[in-house]
Amino acid sequence: MADIAHTVHVALGDRAYDILIGDSLLDDAGAILAERFPGRRYGIITDDNVARAQLPRLLKSLDAAGLGHTEIVLPAGEATKSWAYLGQAVEGILAARLERGDLVIALGGGVIGDLAGFAAAIARRGMDFVQMPTSLLAQVDSSVGGKTGINSPHGKNLIGAFHQPRLVLADLSTLDTLDARQFASGYAEVVKYGLIDDEDFFFWLEEHQAEIFAGGPARGEAIARCCAHKARVVIEDEKELGVRALLNLGHTFGHALEKDTGYSDRLLHGEGVAIGMVLAHGFSARLGLAPSQDSGRIAQHLKKSGLPTTLADIPGKLGSTETLMAAIAQDKKVSRGALTFILTRGIGQAFIEKNVDGAAVAEFLNEMRALPLSP
Amino acid sequence: MADIAHTVHVALGDRAYDILIGDSLLDDAGAILAERFPGRRYGIITDDNVARAQLPRLLKSLDAAGLGHTEIVLPAGEATKSWAYLGQAVEGILAARLERGDLVIALGGGVIGDLAGFAAAIARRGMDFVQMPTSLLAQVDSSVGGKTGINSPHGKNLIGAFHQPRLVLADLSTLDTLDARQFASGYAEVVKYGLIDDEDFFFWLEEHQAEIFAGGPARGEAIARCCAHKARVVIEDEKELGVRALLNLGHTFGHALEKDTGYSDRLLHGEGVAIGMVLAHGFSARLGLAPSQDSGRIAQHLKKSGLPTTLADIPGKLGSTETLMAAIAQDKKVSRGALTFILTRGIGQAFIEKNVDGAAVAEFLNEMRALPLSP
Repeated sequence: MADIAHTVHVALGDRAYDILIGDSLLDDAGAILAERFPGRRYGIITDDNVARAQLPRLLKSLDAAGLGHTEIVLPAGEATKSWAYLGQAVEGILAARLERGDLVIALGGGVIGDLAGFAAAIARRGMDFVQMPTSLLAQVDSSVGGKTGINSPHGKNLIGAFHQPRLVLADLSTLDTLDARQFASGYAEVVKYGLIDDEDFFFWLEEHQAEIFAGGPARGEAIARCCAHKARVVIEDEKELGVRALLNLGHTFGHALEKDTGYSDRLLHGEGVAIGMVLAHGFSARLGLAPSQDSGRIAQHLKKSGLPTTLADIPGKLGSTETLMAAIAQDKKVSRGALTFILTRGIGQAFIEKNVDGAAVAEFLNEMRALPLSP
Repeated sequence: MADIAHTVHVALGDRAYDILIGDSLLDDAGAILAERFPGRRYGIITDDNVARAQLPRLLKSLDAAGLGHTEIVLPAGEATKSWAYLGQAVEGILAARLERGDLVIALGGGVIGDLAGFAAAIARRGMDFVQMPTSLLAQVDSSVGGKTGINSPHGKNLIGAFHQPRLVLADLSTLDTLDARQFASGYAEVVKYGLIDDEDFFFWLEEHQAEIFAGGPARGEAIARCCAHKARVVIEDEKELGVRALLNLGHTFGHALEKDTGYSDRLLHGEGVAIGMVLAHGFSARLGLAPSQDSGRIAQHLKKSGLPTTLADIPGKLGSTETLMAAIAQDKKVSRGALTFILTRGIGQAFIEKNVDGAAVAEFLNEMRALPLSP
C-alpha cells in the first residue's frame, strides 16, 4: 500500500502521533486516513498556490476512499496568518457543519499549518487535525510539535495555541514544486537542528548538501532526522517551559528582521533564521563563549545553500537599531523584562541564556549593520 | 484579612485552583493576588457597566498592593462575544506588553468571563487568568470549569478553548447591583444543579428562595454548593467527553431559543435555560421516562423566581419549528449526526441520551408552541 520511507513517533501520551514521510503520501492519504480515523469527515484548509499544485491529488485520494470533505482556500503568503483569515477558516469549518469528531487537514506550508492548526484548536473548542506539510520548512519544523497561531501587529506568532496534530503526512514529492528560494529557506531550519546539539548532523549536512538539494534519498533522511530531533524536544517540553526554547536558535534576531521587513518577500522566514543563526554564533563569540571561526563556517554552508547570512544581504533599507531592539523586546521569548536569547558554545552546543544585556545586543547589531554583503 | 465565607478547591492536578466566595473580595483582591502571584502585572478586561459599578474598587485594591495594571473596557452585552472584541482584547493585552507570566483578570459577568478567558488562552499561546465574576450566572456557572469562547453566526460558543483560571474571586456584594431580571436569570443555573442530580438541593432551594433573593447567608451557601457541584463534574470530565454534558440540562433547547431571539434582551441566557429545563422535563415525561408532575413543580418554582417557563412567555414572534430544529442540530452537542439531549427520570435524575429522535422533538416543540403564557 502506502510507500512510507520513514516513520517518526511523537510519544506524547494521549496526544501521541506519527509522522509519516514518503514519496507520494498525498496519493495514499485517503487510504491512510480511512484506516486510522474511520467514519470522519474532513475540512481541508489550503492556499491558492498549493490548491493548484497539490489539492487535486488529495481530493482524488479522499474520493477514492469514500471520505467526505470540504475545502477552504485562502491566499498564499504570511499575511494570511491574521485575524481575518483565522475567522474565515473557523467559520468555514462551522459552515460545513463539521463536528467535534471530524478532522481538519492543513495542506500547505508553515503559514497554512499554523493557521489551520489554530483554527482546529478553537473551532468547537478543539477539533482533531492532520498536518500535510508541502514545504521543507513545514516538513522539518512547523508541522511537528503543536505550535499553532497567527501574527499580531505587535509581533509574529503572538496569538495561538498548543494543539498537537493527530497525524503528519510529509509527501516528499511536494518539495519538487517548491522554487529554489523557498527550499533554501526551509533548509535553514534543517541546519538549525545540527547547530543546536548535533554536531555530527551538521557535518553530515555539509557532506550531503548537494544530494539533499537534488532530491536524493539523503533528502528524506535529513527530514526524518529533523523530525526525530524535534519530536524528542517536544516530548520533553511540550509547552516550551524550558529546553524547547532551544528550537528558537536564530529566531529572536530573525523575527525582529522579519517584522522590520514587513513579513514580506524581502526576507523569508528561513532567511531571517539563517542570518539570525549567524548573528547568534557571532554574538556568542563576541561574549567569549564560542570559537570565533564557527560563525564563518556556518555562514559558508548557508551561503552555499543560497541563503543570506548578513544584515547587508537583506534588500532595501533596514530600520534603526532601536526599532530592531524594540521588536526583540516585544518578542514573546521575553521573561519578566530580561532578554532571553539562545546562545552557543559552538556548533552543536546551544543553550538558553535568560539574562542577556540589551545594550550589548544593540552594540553588536550596530556593528553588524556596518558589515558588507556576504562574500 | 480577607473575609472569605466559603472556599471551594477545584482539584485539577497542575491546573488546580481555588474559588473564594465572600462579601467584599474585590476590596481584598490586591492583597490576595500579591500573596498568591508575586511580581505579576495585570490586564483587566471588563465591560462599561461593570467598569462603572466595580472597577474603581478593584483598582484601588490593586494600587494599595502596588500591583501594575492596564484596563480594557468593552461594551456590555452578549454581542461582545465576537471576533471583533476578541481581537480588541487580545491586541490590548499585547499592546500593554503583558508577558506570558502576567495575568489577565476577567471582571464581569458570563460574557466578559468567556471572552477574557479565551483572550488569555490565546494571547502568547496561553496566559494565566483570574475570574472575578460579578453576576450570579457567572459566580455559579461560567467562571468555574475553564470553558471560554465567543459566538459564531452559526451558533453560540462554537469558538473557544478549555482554559482553567488560576483563581476565582466571587464577591457577593457585586450581586446587589444586579437588576432583578439578571439575578433571576442566574438563578436558573442554580436550580439546574438541583435538577441534575441533587434532589435535596432543589428542595432546599424551594425553602430558601426568599432568603437567596433577599441576600441573606443562604445566598453565599447556594453559590458555594453550586461551585462545589460544578467543580466535582469538571474534575471528573474536564473536556466534556462524558458526564460534564449533564451541565447542559435545558441548554440545547435554551441555545436554540437564544439564537432565534438574536441573543437579545428578549431572552436572557438563564431565561432560555429556564424554559429549556421545563421543556426537557416535559419531553422526558412525554417519552414516559419521568413523572409528569415534575415539570409543573419546576415551572412553579422558576415562575416564582421571576423566570419564563413556556415558549409563549417569550415576547415577540418565535421562528418556525424547522428553524428551531436547525439551530438544535447545529448546536455543538451533536455527535455524528444523532441528536444528543440531556433527558431526565425526574428531579435530580438527569442523564445523557445520545440517540434522540429529531422528529419526536419537533412534534413536541410544535405542541409546546400552542400552549398559552405560563399561569
